[in-house]
Amino acid sequence: MPSAGYAPLDINGIRSYLNALPVARDRLGQEASAWRIREVGDGNLNLVFIVEGKGAVVVKQALPYVRLVGESWPLPLKRSFFESNALFIQERYAPGLTPQIYHFDDRMALIVMEYLSPHIILRKGLMQRKIYPKAATTIAQFMALTLYNTSMLASSAEAHKARIELFASNTALCKITEDLVFTDPYREAALNRWTSPQLDGIKAEFERDNPLKLAAQEKKWQFVTEAQALIHGDLHTGSVMVTDSDTRVIDPEFAFVGPIAFDVGAIIANYLLSFFSHRGQSQDGGPDSYCDWLLGQTEMLWTVFEAQFLKLWEQQPSGEVFAQGLFETPESTAALAAHRHVFMQKLFRDALGFAGCKMIRRILGLAHVQDMESIKDPDVRARAETMALIFARQLLLQAHGFSGIADVTAAAQEHASPAKV
Amino acid sequence: MPSAGYAPLDINGIRSYLNALPVARDRLGQEASAWRIREVGDGNLNLVFIVEGKGAVVVKQALPYVRLVGESWPLPLKRSFFESNALFIQERYAPGLTPQIYHFDDRMALIVMEYLSPHIILRKGLMQRKIYPKAATTIAQFMALTLYNTSMLASSAEAHKARIELFASNTALCKITEDLVFTDPYREAALNRWTSPQLDGIKAEFERDNPLKLAAQEKKWQFVTEAQALIHGDLHTGSVMVTDSDTRVIDPEFAFVGPIAFDVGAIIANYLLSFFSHRGQSQDGGPDSYCDWLLGQTEMLWTVFEAQFLKLWEQQPSGEVFAQGLFETPESTAALAAHRHVFMQKLFRDALGFAGCKMIRRILGLAHVQDMESIKDPDVRARAETMALIFARQLLLQAHGFSGIADVTAAAQEHASPAKV
Repeated sequence: MPSAGYAPLDINGIRSYLNALPVARDRLGQEASAWRIREVGDGNLNLVFIVEGKGAVVVKQALPYVRLVGESWPLPLKRSFFESNALFIQERYAPGLTPQIYHFDDRMALIVMEYLSPHIILRKGLMQRKIYPKAATTIAQFMALTLYNTSMLASSAEAHKARIELFASNTALCKITEDLVFTDPYREAALNRWTSPQLDGIKAEFERDNPLKLAAQEKKWQFVTEAQALIHGDLHTGSVMVTDSDTRVIDPEFAFVGPIAFDVGAIIANYLLSFFSHRGQSQDGGPDSYCDWLLGQTEMLWTVFEAQFLKLWEQQPSGEVFAQGLFETPESTAALAAHRHVFMQKLFRDALGFAGCKMIRRILGLAHVQDMESIKDPDVRARAETMALIFARQLLLQAHGFSGIADVTAAAQEHASPAKV
Repeated sequence: MPSAGYAPLDINGIRSYLNALPVARDRLGQEASAWRIREVGDGNLNLVFIVEGKGAVVVKQALPYVRLVGESWPLPLKRSFFESNALFIQERYAPGLTPQIYHFDDRMALIVMEYLSPHIILRKGLMQRKIYPKAATTIAQFMALTLYNTSMLASSAEAHKARIELFASNTALCKITEDLVFTDPYREAALNRWTSPQLDGIKAEFERDNPLKLAAQEKKWQFVTEAQALIHGDLHTGSVMVTDSDTRVIDPEFAFVGPIAFDVGAIIANYLLSFFSHRGQSQDGGPDSYCDWLLGQTEMLWTVFEAQFLKLWEQQPSGEVFAQGLFETPESTAALAAHRHVFMQKLFRDALGFAGCKMIRRILGLAHVQDMESIKDPDVRARAETMALIFARQLLLQAHGFSGIADVTAAAQEHASPAKV
């Protein structure tokens, strides 16, 4: 329900709003009448304006419903509050890896923030087979910094619970994930879509696959109960903007204190979806260096995340769990160091399970990815999607079978080989 | 920090307070001047008054510090808010198993509630070798009803997160558990106490036992991150009042949304502490039917809890995880039924780990149990405590080695055999 004083803005509304805002006026320069303003929101939920004068800003305003679906699916404006709070916290722990916030207006559910240029959405770059040598590494660092520092490994219980409390009422956006990622793809749900009739068989198979459904519900249980760190909550390649040298993570409106492995699994899933989209379009299934690069980047997502997370844990063990006072002799220190790897191994397997869920929902659920959607020939698209689905099922059911990320990429390569399809 | 208007009451203060409260006046009858009032708080934290007229009530008022330690250890009055909210929720799901609340005064941090008579504290009854045939069963039912119904197995995510939010700021009491249960017993901490010099050796051994310390910290991680259900948070035999035919669970001021297994482990630990206290006092270590009864009750705690929890889950699967819509064919229903046992098995092992922590903290940490403290001869006490400690370490380190609760009680019997000591 919109609060008193809220109104969605059009281009003229944005012009007057920013003209009354010194921080925006200073940044934009020129007369307000000269600003060039366009609405560019191509996401599922919000209005997004790019405003250019001498300088430039982006204005993101929440709508009281899901833009993709319409007014029949209301969605609280408070997501703007959660997004701005998440951005503030992420900026604190991972400085420079998110867009800078200039202004947040709770009443208008509106954020004025840095205009990233010449950045493009990472997903679009990957679709165009562009090489971003630093993107995966930077995303991995972003995850390590934000997830480590907002966990009890780094912080007091009091601070941790304050974060839990701050984001606890972000229920509407969490419920989108709960329903669309963990439940709907495995049942008949009005909003599901898939490439039909090619995938009708596998869709029906998944609905009957009890071990798969139970595994997905176990992941849902983790998602709703494991309050481990402030997660981004929607960390796919459409939530990352890149240039050759810069990488920024955007759109944390799904943020809440949840399982660390969810973010890690989400981004791995999206690199793998890109990989399968390209492999599926290959005529002969022969070697493809871009696909190899994507798998290498998928490996980087985990290996850099793991190394950075461990490094932070070793260097800044400021939290109240695995507390320093308990592990001060050389033997204790060594035992704790060994245990950290046990901890990371569990996190790795949890991430693979979440990755499986995230891949499946993008092919059998409501919201799809452009990587696949852009494949015009439905038979070709279905081939790529089937590879991805079968691999995702393995991730979800056999996470314990993978001893490391190289195992995962080798299996992905195997699933995409011509003999398999 | 006490809020404006708060003042701890003495006996005269209680008299005037209740005289101004119709619900209390009606219940007490007589002139206020004729009421018999005594302060009976023997717990660690609060003032407790019994007020008797024609009827009777109990008044529990929080103090702004830990009563056991003094004003040097401040403690928020808001725990009274958390206790009353927990009591309301527990009464809703487990009617009649808690004291009835007549009045809650947030400003005065004061609850007026039912006077339970002729109830005594279960721990005291067990110390006197009394048989309470229904106590363990009723506690198990209380746990199943409250823990199932406040979990995502029964409720919507929105309701679950509202509970998380409501109790998130109960940080001060949670921190007592975090420090005293999971950390301090394993290090040098000023507040630790143990039977010295008899237990000096094992205390030092525990401080050096890296697998044990890591296991305890893993349990702490679960305690602070697993937001599974509204737990009582302090469910020992001193938090239960009994007669031969009635059992009530009191004092949920440590309540928050935490791991289900914590409550289950806590009460199992306290029955086992009672068992070891009696076995340790046995001159010849020969058969003791009361000890056998205690182990039988320990088994009931788990078996009744498990059966009731499963029954609720089968009959009222109203939550948003393992949702009904996914498991509607006979094959699906059977698969879900099998999976419920996997879920309970994990919960069982988690409970054993928590039980181990709870036993250790009562022997090497700050707050001890009367079962052990009442043993006057320090050598005898140390013998009982050593049995309990060694067994507790096994629970914590080898939870996976126990296939069921009968394994646990058999091992406890074994640990208490004369040959072992």
